[in-house]
Amino acid sequence: MSASAPVDLRNWIRDIPDFPKPGIQFKDITPLLGHAEAFRTSIDLLEAEFRHKGIEVIAAAEARGFIFGAPLAMKMNAGFVPIRKPGKLPYATIAQEYALEYGNDRLEVHSDALAPGRRVLLIDDVLATGGTMCACRDLVRSTGADLVACAFVIELSFLGGRSKLEPCEIFSLVTY
Amino acid sequence: MSASAPVDLRNWIRDIPDFPKPGIQFKDITPLLGHAEAFRTSIDLLEAEFRHKGIEVIAAAEARGFIFGAPLAMKMNAGFVPIRKPGKLPYATIAQEYALEYGNDRLEVHSDALAPGRRVLLIDDVLATGGTMCACRDLVRSTGADLVACAFVIELSFLGGRSKLEPCEIFSLVTY
Repeated sequence: MSASAPVDLRNWIRDIPDFPKPGIQFKDITPLLGHAEAFRTSIDLLEAEFRHKGIEVIAAAEARGFIFGAPLAMKMNAGFVPIRKPGKLPYATIAQEYALEYGNDRLEVHSDALAPGRRVLLIDDVLATGGTMCACRDLVRSTGADLVACAFVIELSFLGGRSKLEPCEIFSLVTY
Repeated sequence: MSASAPVDLRNWIRDIPDFPKPGIQFKDITPLLGHAEAFRTSIDLLEAEFRHKGIEVIAAAEARGFIFGAPLAMKMNAGFVPIRKPGKLPYATIAQEYALEYGNDRLEVHSDALAPGRRVLLIDDVLATGGTMCACRDLVRSTGADLVACAFVIELSFLGGRSKLEPCEIFSLVTY
């Protein structure tokens, strides 16, 4: 058998102009998700990066974070903890507010989902301005859990999200 | 090595009384997600059921559907197609309205995500009254794709969702 060329994830990420508003070029990951080999490659590459870091829990915010976080949890033999918008989680929660362009939003996690010392990897599809991931980071740390790193499929480096998250370890598969 | 006892998924599903409103007993799957072996068991059992059915695409509605649909796609070497609330998908979409207790809601899928003859498995965490899954079924069929079955982790049989979806094939891991 000859080795086949590795999948270049960039070939499966599509630019959508003017979404969600004029002047924004949106990175659409649905072609990647729809292509089994490309999707698998993204999860394999994330797993390879964090394989030896003792990750016990993958946590991710709804909704696109779930699409990468849940298969990564499976692949890494870790538990999966969903971080959700207000009112979606049925049990007792802890919450973290964060600023949007206009006003605030809030993310919640179950109060029994994490515990001091648990080694957590946060994952999301895109690192843009970093607002959502900063809220996730603060939420994880407020439980006493040990945040090992924040990982992304795509990093939009020109939006400066990385500098907001540092000194937390940050890993991205594709950077624009 | 002796075989260990199989995981009983029921042990990892928690009843939450009066959520999302008084009188409703909510089945909380977050303990299952947080336990790597239980989560893996749920995906393994779904894969075993559909292994020989030529599934090419797993489709699931946000947000909890993503948590089971994405790892199942990975495990089955299938593509993953997200079905989303209005305005969330960046490319051209097709939509399906469905009735809520008060008023209507709408689900969307990218117009290029499915194609005639593609063999699709729909998945969600819970079959309750079946409204969301009926909308997903109609959305998949409107693309000309071949809906093979609808699969659930939990079926609340007393709510009658099954009879709304039939004659579509329905499979559930745990029935109450």
